[in-house]
Formats: sequence, structure tokens, C-alpha cells
Amino acid sequence: MNLTELKEKHAQYQASGLNLNIQRGQPSDEDFDLSLPLIDILKRDDYKTRSGIDVRNYPGGVRGIPEACELFSELLGAEPGEMVVGNNSSLEMMTNVLQWALIKGVKNSPQPWIRETPKMIVTVPGYDRHFSLLETLGFEMVPVEMTADGPDIEAVERLAKSDPQIKGIYFVPTYNNPTGDTISEDVAKRLVTLDAAAPDFTILADDAYSVHHLDDNPGEIPNLLQLAKSAGNPDRVILFGSTSKVTFSSGGIGLLAMSESNLGYWLKLFSMQTIGPNKIEQWRHVRFLEQYPGGLKGLMRDHAAIIKPKFDATLRILNEEFAGTDLATWTEPRGGYFISFNTARPVASRVVELAAEAGVSLTPAGATYPGGVDPENSNIRIAPTRPPLGEIEEAVRVMANCVKLASAEYDEAN
Amino acid sequence: MNLTELKEKHAQYQASGLNLNIQRGQPSDEDFDLSLPLIDILKRDDYKTRSGIDVRNYPGGVRGIPEACELFSELLGAEPGEMVVGNNSSLEMMTNVLQWALIKGVKNSPQPWIRETPKMIVTVPGYDRHFSLLETLGFEMVPVEMTADGPDIEAVERLAKSDPQIKGIYFVPTYNNPTGDTISEDVAKRLVTLDAAAPDFTILADDAYSVHHLDDNPGEIPNLLQLAKSAGNPDRVILFGSTSKVTFSSGGIGLLAMSESNLGYWLKLFSMQTIGPNKIEQWRHVRFLEQYPGGLKGLMRDHAAIIKPKFDATLRILNEEFAGTDLATWTEPRGGYFISFNTARPVASRVVELAAEAGVSLTPAGATYPGGVDPENSNIRIAPTRPPLGEIEEAVRVMANCVKLASAEYDEAN
Repeated sequence: MNLTELKEKHAQYQASGLNLNIQRGQPSDEDFDLSLPLIDILKRDDYKTRSGIDVRNYPGGVRGIPEACELFSELLGAEPGEMVVGNNSSLEMMTNVLQWALIKGVKNSPQPWIRETPKMIVTVPGYDRHFSLLETLGFEMVPVEMTADGPDIEAVERLAKSDPQIKGIYFVPTYNNPTGDTISEDVAKRLVTLDAAAPDFTILADDAYSVHHLDDNPGEIPNLLQLAKSAGNPDRVILFGSTSKVTFSSGGIGLLAMSESNLGYWLKLFSMQTIGPNKIEQWRHVRFLEQYPGGLKGLMRDHAAIIKPKFDATLRILNEEFAGTDLATWTEPRGGYFISFNTARPVASRVVELAAEAGVSLTPAGATYPGGVDPENSNIRIAPTRPPLGEIEEAVRVMANCVKLASAEYDEAN
Repeated sequence: MNLTELKEKHAQYQASGLNLNIQRGQPSDEDFDLSLPLIDILKRDDYKTRSGIDVRNYPGGVRGIPEACELFSELLGAEPGEMVVGNNSSLEMMTNVLQWALIKGVKNSPQPWIRETPKMIVTVPGYDRHFSLLETLGFEMVPVEMTADGPDIEAVERLAKSDPQIKGIYFVPTYNNPTGDTISEDVAKRLVTLDAAAPDFTILADDAYSVHHLDDNPGEIPNLLQLAKSAGNPDRVILFGSTSKVTFSSGGIGLLAMSESNLGYWLKLFSMQTIGPNKIEQWRHVRFLEQYPGGLKGLMRDHAAIIKPKFDATLRILNEEFAGTDLATWTEPRGGYFISFNTARPVASRVVELAAEAGVSLTPAGATYPGGVDPENSNIRIAPTRPPLGEIEEAVRVMANCVKLASAEYDEAN
């Protein structure tokens, strides 16, 4: 189609009164329905755990109940003794770790990070909440590219080696938000062994999608914590996760894992700030996941059965619309919640604007970069999980026309 | 009794194999039983709040669900629009506020607190977790006496006026831990209006016992937040509270209240660290407290019916043992969880040691002072809420003998 035809088609979409949204990284109601028994599975006489803890009272420890540490260790590939099971938000747990790092330092810090104008490596495109958090905490962000194998490891090695103010890397190792890329074994090994100028270089791995496979056979996914321990760097890695996209969003359980030697340092800090997390909620999750057919794995398979058709439809339409053109590239994730789409021309913000005109909400252009600025103005995050299948198909069709129209406008103007 | 007789009686207690504990500020199982329906009151189809929020998904806001803000505003005497309803721990919310204050400052801070080697006024005797938290965060503590009318206001005024590094006061305004004292209207007014050298002087009021009355007619208790707003200092006060001793301990809801003008500043920070608290748990609390006979007030009356006899018995025995002697003084709280007991001689640590020999656990001597050191070695915190009535009576009898024995030992040696 030429520019005029594309504009006409866009006008038709505008006239049709659509109200579609593919910007939100949220489960669908159908996903939530799988976990409905979680709400009322715990009965009022079921307040003593198998380990003998009365979940109504304070004692039980800052790490959460042992049954939850055991159950959720599977989610992060950690030992139960390496787990801290918290309240509902892994983002809050990450914030807390970064706050303490600034105020006190991490285990091997010569001084509190805040005294050094700390810098943090982040991967781009990446997760906007990581960027806004780091900015608010006063970190200078040093972006490196997220490749199909994980963070651009040569850039990370070079940066970490040359600058002692670089205190670590903060990223999503499995099914990255938004690219869906997963770190390779080789990159993971180089990350846990790299020669850093800072003695307290820390890998903060937001493993939010560690069990969110779309493939039946996801293969072996590298575990940074285990690799770091094997490499003799047990204190370098802190893993985070949650059940926000396993059970309920903001109604799940936040998780953290680190080596036991590292935990010795951190538990002293955590125990200053809380007597412990909500144990009733943890016990509820244990009861629910233990009775779910196939347990955690069974639940994730049932999620995949809902989500995979949405990814498949999105990818199918992108192929139909753009295969053989020079207009765009996109990722084909094997898990997670997002597809990363790149326009060949610097028109992402124009695409988002056009889509909004046509009644389709996309993640704001630039959101996947620190400060909200994509230097190429090309990345668009597609979140196909929340809407019903039919709405996704329609939204992606509309978006595709916006990409073509914005690209044609650009070509005409340049 | 003379020293020999006291020693004999102590030996008898030792031989009788007691195992009693009056050190823990915890509700009893009978208290917890009042809230058992909270565990399973929410049914699996009850996931949409009256305000239209699906508690299974992220959206709903960082302040918690409106129904919880409304319900719990009663607990802190605040407007619903001044509330932040969190997860399970008010201590964690206090920590978070202090962490941000150090890293970014409070609303009116010229710079982050950490740049100034900040000092914080605390009241003694006071709550050990406040002291250990402040110490870990790097605050220098400046203790002032907790009087029957609240913090020694003349000392607070003098300190705040003279030293810009003094960033505020952190204390328990209602039924203080451990004295049970409540701030008077006059002291509260002077606190919210005092002339501070620091422009960002902040009153952190841990109102953990705001509705924990033992009297049927507790009278009017001053509200620091409302007084601060009336006095034109709306940003000076932050109130904290929780339902840890209303519903379940570590299984309740943490609360914070501040003026709406102040919230504007803080919500920007809070929204960086979490999408929001666990809304399902909040909705559960709303459903439970709304159906409880008499609501929150009714539940607190039922708690008082369990707890008051324990306080009465403790005070009766203390009177029987010590009235007319020069050995000890103690407080007679009208609410809260503790009785503060002072030996006339510097023997508190010896009393705790003797009591342990006789099978009675008391709060470690000094715990009610910063750094764990009571300069008078006289304060003992009695926590009568957790054990059954009979055990409390026995434990207080044993403790009384230990006080007499330690005092007699002291008199003989001096």
C-alpha cells in the first residue's frame, strides 16, 4: 500500500471506535481463575504449619516459613537454605536491598555505596521500573545492549573492569522484559567470574519469569547463583522472583535467593526492619500449590496453554504483515510476558501516537530505556498476555498499519 | 524476710521446675482466636471490591484499597485520604521512611539526611526495636525521658532548637512500650509547634497501641497529626500503626498516615518501589472487621476483656509485694501491652538473672535503652499479655522475690 492507502486504512480504524490495550504486562482473568482456590483454601483451624509454627503469631523468622522456602526454592533454582520468602512484591525486596547497599553497603563493600556516586549497568531494552527506581535512588545508569545471549558481555566486562564506581548489573536474566531473551550459559559464567574493579560488584538478577516457559521443553536455563558459587564468587549474585504472574499480581509472594554466606550479612539487616513476613499468606500459597495438579509446574503449564496462543497469534500477524519488508524486526520469545518489536526507521514514538489515535494503547515509546529515551526511537514493547485472543489479533493488525504508515511518512519526509 | 529467707524461697522456686515467660509482647492464643474467621472469611468469588478493584491484579494503587483506607483511618484518627495501608509490618514501613529520608530526605529537607550524620531523639525507657533500627541505619540517638505526659518536652524543645542535626523524634505516643504512658494534649501541642533548628524536623509516632485501651472510658487521646495540621505544620508528623495486636501478629496490616500535602512527596517515592500492597489481604480484613460485632471497637473490647484481668493481677501482686517498701515503683497503664517496673536499687540485671534461674523469662535488662544499657540498671519490662492468667500470677510472684533478693544482696554489699 502507498501512503494514501495506509492513511485511509488508518482512518477506517479510527472511525471504528476500537479500545484495545497491549501495553500491560498483566495476566488475564483466565490466568487468575486458575488460582481462585488460593483465596479460600486455608481453613480457620489450619494455622499451624507442619514445622510447628503458629502463623497467627510473630515467631517464625525473617526468612518466611520453612515450607515456603522449600516450595519456592524450585522457582529460583536455589537451596531452601538460600531463600528469603517475603510479602507480595519482589520490586520492594530489590528496593530494600539497594537502599541498604546505599546506606550500609553489601557484604564486601569497603563503604556504603552512597559515598561513591554509584553506577549500575542496566540492559536495554529493559524494564522501566528498574530504571525509574535506580534513578530515584541516585544511581547513574550505564546501559549495555541485551542480546539474544544476555547482556553484551564484552561491554559489561570492559565497564566493570575499568570503573570501581560500577557496583553491579541489574537485569532480567530469563525471558527478559521486553525482549524475551535468556542469558546463555557462557555469558552467565563470564558474568559471575568477570574481573571487577569494585570488590563489591553485585549481580541483581530480577528473575521474574524463571518458570514462565511457553515451550514444553524449555531446556536448561543457566542459574547465576549456582554458577557464582561454583566459581568461588558466592556473594556476587542476588536472585529475585515472585509469584505475581504465577498466582495473583500484587497478591502473590516475593522471593529472594543468595548464598548462605551472603545471607548471614543480609539477614542481620532484614531482621532490623521486620519481625517477619505475613506467614498466613505463605501458608495459604503452600496449601494451594501442593494440591494443584502437577504443583507449580502444572500451574505454569496451564498458564502457558492460555498465553502461548496469544504469542503465536501476535507472531503470526507480525510475519504476515512484515515478512519480506525492510520495515521491522522482532523477537520470538520462548517464555515470559513480552515481545520486543523494532521499527527499522526512527518512528516508534509516531507509531505509539498513531496507535492511540486508532484506539490501541501501546507502551510509551522509550519506556524500555533509561530516562524514557530510546536513542534509536525504534523499540516498541508488545504485551500480549492480558487481552482476549481476538483483541490481541485486532490490536496487532492496527499496530502493523501504524508502523507502515509511520515508515511511509518518514520515507517521504527524508 | 531477710536475705537467708529470700534465698531459701528462691531455691524453692528453682527446685519447682517452672517455665514461665513474661517477656514477650505478644497476644495470647485466646486473643488470636477472636480473629480466626479472618482466615477463611473471603470466598473465591469475592475478588472485586465495592470500589471496583479486582484484588487479583496489579491496579489499585500504592496506598491500598479505598475500603481499607476508610476502615483503618479510625485506628490512626486520620482522614481516609491521609492513609497508606501496606502489607503486614509497620516496622518495615518505618524503616522504609527512614531509608528514604537518609537517601533523599523528607519533604522539607535541604539535603539527604545521610549527609548530615543525623541524630534522632528517642524516649527512654522505650522500644528496643526502634533503638536497634536507628543504630543500624547510622543515627545517633539522643535519649529523653518518657514521663507520664509523654516525652520530656522541655528537653525535646531545647535539643531540637539547638542542633540542626537533630532530625526528629521517634517514639510511641499512646500507651508507650514499656511504660504505658500516653502523651498529654499539652505536650502534643508543644511537640508539633516547637521551634526546631532543622527545617525538616519530623515526628515519627509509632502508634502501635492507639486503640488498645484497657479502660471502658479511655478519654480523649491527643492526635499528633490533626494537631500538627491545625498548628500549620502539616508535614511534621508521620503516624504508624498496625493490626498486629488487633487481628494477627505478623499476619495483620501495617498502616501509615500523614497530611495529604506530605503524601504528595512520599507517594512518588513509594510508587517507585512497589506497584502496591497485597490487596487480597486488605479486602479480607475489611470483610472480617465489618462483620465483627461492634466492628474494630467491638474487637478491641473483646481483647480488653482478655487482657485487663492479666494487667489487674500483675498490679495486684506488685501492690501486695511492694506497697510500703522502698524497693520498687511501677506504672499502672490504662492500655497497651506492658508495665514498666523500676527497682529502687541498680539491680535490674541481677533480677533478670535470678528470675532465669527460677524458670521465669524476663525481657533482658537494658533492652529498653539505646545500646541495651540502662544507666540506672533499674528498668524491667513486664509483658503480661501472652501467658494464661495463672502463669502470670506465678511469674510475677517469682519476680517479686528476685527483686527482694537482689535488693537485699545489694544492700548487704554496699
